[in-house]
Amino acid sequence: MKHGGDLTEAMARYGGSPQMWLDLSTGVNPWPWPIPAGLPAAAWQRLPSRADEEALIVAAREAYAVPAGAEIVAAAGTQSLIQWLPQLASAGPVAVVEPTYNEHARAWRMAGHEVIARPDLDDLSQAVRHVVVVNPNNPDGRVISRAVLARTAALLQRRGGWLVVDEAFADIEPETSVIELCANWPVVVLRSFGKFYGLAGLRLGFAIASPEIARPISLALGPWPCSGPALNIGGAALRDREWAGRARLVIQHRARKVDAVLANAGFMIVGGTGLFRLVRRSDAGKVHASLATQHIWCRRFDWADDLLRFGLPPDDRDLERLAVALASG
Amino acid sequence: MKHGGDLTEAMARYGGSPQMWLDLSTGVNPWPWPIPAGLPAAAWQRLPSRADEEALIVAAREAYAVPAGAEIVAAAGTQSLIQWLPQLASAGPVAVVEPTYNEHARAWRMAGHEVIARPDLDDLSQAVRHVVVVNPNNPDGRVISRAVLARTAALLQRRGGWLVVDEAFADIEPETSVIELCANWPVVVLRSFGKFYGLAGLRLGFAIASPEIARPISLALGPWPCSGPALNIGGAALRDREWAGRARLVIQHRARKVDAVLANAGFMIVGGTGLFRLVRRSDAGKVHASLATQHIWCRRFDWADDLLRFGLPPDDRDLERLAVALASG
Repeated sequence: MKHGGDLTEAMARYGGSPQMWLDLSTGVNPWPWPIPAGLPAAAWQRLPSRADEEALIVAAREAYAVPAGAEIVAAAGTQSLIQWLPQLASAGPVAVVEPTYNEHARAWRMAGHEVIARPDLDDLSQAVRHVVVVNPNNPDGRVISRAVLARTAALLQRRGGWLVVDEAFADIEPETSVIELCANWPVVVLRSFGKFYGLAGLRLGFAIASPEIARPISLALGPWPCSGPALNIGGAALRDREWAGRARLVIQHRARKVDAVLANAGFMIVGGTGLFRLVRRSDAGKVHASLATQHIWCRRFDWADDLLRFGLPPDDRDLERLAVALASG
Repeated sequence: MKHGGDLTEAMARYGGSPQMWLDLSTGVNPWPWPIPAGLPAAAWQRLPSRADEEALIVAAREAYAVPAGAEIVAAAGTQSLIQWLPQLASAGPVAVVEPTYNEHARAWRMAGHEVIARPDLDDLSQAVRHVVVVNPNNPDGRVISRAVLARTAALLQRRGGWLVVDEAFADIEPETSVIELCANWPVVVLRSFGKFYGLAGLRLGFAIASPEIARPISLALGPWPCSGPALNIGGAALRDREWAGRARLVIQHRARKVDAVLANAGFMIVGGTGLFRLVRRSDAGKVHASLATQHIWCRRFDWADDLLRFGLPPDDRDLERLAVALASG
């Protein structure tokens, strides 16, 4: 399974309709920001205007605390930015701190860069020109400190390279963000809208960088990268700071409950973020199959046969269903 | 004015709220396909699944009559495909049949290709490796015949190049489409969903090409290029052939009425498609300004001071408003 959050494979192999499945393979918040009924018709019908896009950018700058010296570019999902960045970066090898979200290495390779897998940012070889870090990391939640990232940014600046920090899961722990580095260093921070706001289908993400880096990103995306609904809903959600504060608490509370259920089933909690938990058990593959026959879909990895990743069950009944399924497995 | 369909500049220069303006600067159908109330929540919340994307692709293949030997790739608007194509094409100069939609030349230049402006496809110089044609053309509606396009495709195949045919406005005249060439020639056809279906804010477009060309396009876009609402609404609209048949008649009928009003105001009808009319009057710049003071926004061009382009007024009252404004100007 290449990605979480897609029941196509699960249903093909284990049957059942989408309604029957409890999908815990994703890191998307199961309690979405509530979309108001009745979007303005113009959001669907008209090309998004510069004014519409500007309103979203203002909201995103505020929500993500983008410093004055940095720019923020909106795109149809962070993935579309991941696809473009390696095309725009200068030639040269990239170090990717792994294991992590596998689309970074794929995109850099596709653009012709050598990809060097690294367990951390210590002792980067002289050849490394760019670095990609997912922070907090997916799937293990590992956080690299701001001090280490700042040191890496300074190193890469001397080499004419970029430090890409994918903060897809930083909304739950905003204190981990290094967006403040973007004003003065060759740092590109990626922020995903859909995961924390529970609206992954909307396709909205952001790149934050200095004007010299942000400008070519914006030109590469071209006009109208975001849909009218994404501008409209994204702007309103990002302005709703009260919802965000509450969501952080609810997510963290639920994550602790999931940990308790998984620990009780003999899993060791390896890490994760509020939106997913990475756990270890030697027979993880067997557990994955047993849960799948009970129409519960969690995430496994082709690089480790003892790890599983669980997203958050939407309600207590689902949590109970998971506990019962694990006990019967 | 770089593009139509954006009142930001109009309002900045001539005041007024969006409700006060009659926007005729766009080529988007003013009678959109009716979006059913209540999209499934999953369309917003979940990452679009492979099954969701496959359902859209099946509908699009059918609607656009894609031959069995060709592939169709969905993207968040044709513009995002225009951005990628020159990155994926082999190195070498591109001939763009101009004047036309200006984003093609911009994107090819940005990717490092020399751009050669051409009035037609006769006597292409030996240096030309790729060709871009908008067909029917925006803004003048000029149609290059299938025979000429097939001959050009054969020529470019020998040179290892691509023929890109942007059929953004072909839905109104489906007989102009050259999609059938895609199976056997290096032809990339672009189809825009938002213009004909009146849902430009949705951001949905397609590239049709042989598997060897379609595969790298798909890899460049990466996973989840389209939003959940775009997959859902796009699929349903493309399956609604009855609506499409009716829309063609309504659009063509209205275009003739617009022609009558413009001819009556002393304009010569140069051409256009059903969704916009290109007209000539020596004092076009003055007319544009006069209409703008009356909060009617049409499209002018920086390469011709005697041309204006008018989209379709949504109802008879708007058509009458245009007639009165032209008479008073």
